[in-house]
Amino acid sequence: MSIRAKLAELGVALPDAPKPLAAYVPAVRVGNLIYSSGQLPLLNGALVSGGKGKVGLSVTKEEAKAAARQCAINALAAMAACVGDVENIERIVKLTVFVASESGFSEQPFVANGASEFFQEVFGENGRHARSAVGVAELPMSASVEVEAIGVAKP
Amino acid sequence: MSIRAKLAELGVALPDAPKPLAAYVPAVRVGNLIYSSGQLPLLNGALVSGGKGKVGLSVTKEEAKAAARQCAINALAAMAACVGDVENIERIVKLTVFVASESGFSEQPFVANGASEFFQEVFGENGRHARSAVGVAELPMSASVEVEAIGVAKP
Amino acid sequence: MSIRAKLAELGVALPDAPKPLAAYVPAVRVGNLIYSSGQLPLLNGALVSGGKGKVGLSVTKEEAKAAARQCAINALAAMAACVGDVENIERIVKLTVFVASESGFSEQPFVANGASEFFQEVFGENGRHARSAVGVAELPMSASVEVEAIGVAKP
Repeated sequence: MSIRAKLAELGVALPDAPKPLAAYVPAVRVGNLIYSSGQLPLLNGALVSGGKGKVGLSVTKEEAKAAARQCAINALAAMAACVGDVENIERIVKLTVFVASESGFSEQPFVANGASEFFQEVFGENGRHARSAVGVAELPMSASVEVEAIGVAKP
Repeated sequence: MSIRAKLAELGVALPDAPKPLAAYVPAVRVGNLIYSSGQLPLLNGALVSGGKGKVGLSVTKEEAKAAARQCAINALAAMAACVGDVENIERIVKLTVFVASESGFSEQPFVANGASEFFQEVFGENGRHARSAVGVAELPMSASVEVEAIGVAKP
Repeated sequence: MSIRAKLAELGVALPDAPKPLAAYVPAVRVGNLIYSSGQLPLLNGALVSGGKGKVGLSVTKEEAKAAARQCAINALAAMAACVGDVENIERIVKLTVFVASESGFSEQPFVANGASEFFQEVFGENGRHARSAVGVAELPMSASVEVEAIGVAKP
């Protein structure tokens, strides 16, 4: 099944390619590696519900997990735009998931699974990746989660 | 000297390969690069002494340095399982060390040396790597330290 | 224009190559990728003004942006030493910017632009990179910002 068909089956519409920003870009390819920028849980320009605040206080872990999925969707869109088409992405090799964490919240892996499971749903065996999940003090726009991805382009 | 002999000399027993987890895996190879997942200071399924809590408060920097070494052992085990044998790892190129830090604790490099020195002991010149060490708010399982590594496989 | 000429035009003097440290090194090359270690806003061995403290409290975002530029200069010096000459660096592909953030400070992208804009000024189109910017609890030496870079060497 194509990646596009899989996304359609999951009911996921990839957003338009994020616009290139002043001094950095949404994703860069070097050789076959594709580095995405850190992605926030933005949808149509605004943070999704549960996408803002510190997890364990104003945001529940379930809400943050859903926000992490949105970050992953945006990371996929950034990588797809970089290589011209989502079908040109062969696999996902590494995620780093930063979770804005209230003191005492230590379930970053639960939150990060929102991103990891998305990539596995879309890419199957090729979506299985290495991952780090850590709890940080603050994120841009007071987001609850930020995800960066490294993918591999088809040769 | 083989890596295995060097580990024996150091009295380090590599743990069994970590089990593949639901949506991500302990390490992934792409080309000759091996990306490990972030590793916690686990030994036989439990955090080691000094492996839990914030450094500078409930955990001393010396304890955290020892915990960082355990993280590095686990990262090596993950990379070894990924490429079939620890002897198939040629060198270590990059570490990122996340230290759960009490406010005002700024000796993350001291802690990170626990991981860096381990890799240099095992790989010698090939163990010299680039590194970032940062102090984060919280880590999974309330661990005191988390280490991710990038290695290079023999061709 | 050469990189060296561009640096001169910007009035930037690359510092001497950082000395190799005990257990890790300022930068490592593998294939054409160059990984820098995390760099602090050091100038002549001391943190620059605005290079120490938490952003949003003792350090303003404008000061931290200037500090991030100094981190980027140091990262460029580290990569240049690794490949023998700054002219051997072809492009910059990825930055990770860690900002020591007071609770409630969420303008990490503003701070990170200090590093991103430097690389774009020096490398032009080849300086456009992917980037993550996150707010962390503490950094080594109580620095306000730390920047790590991945570059590409000329073949």
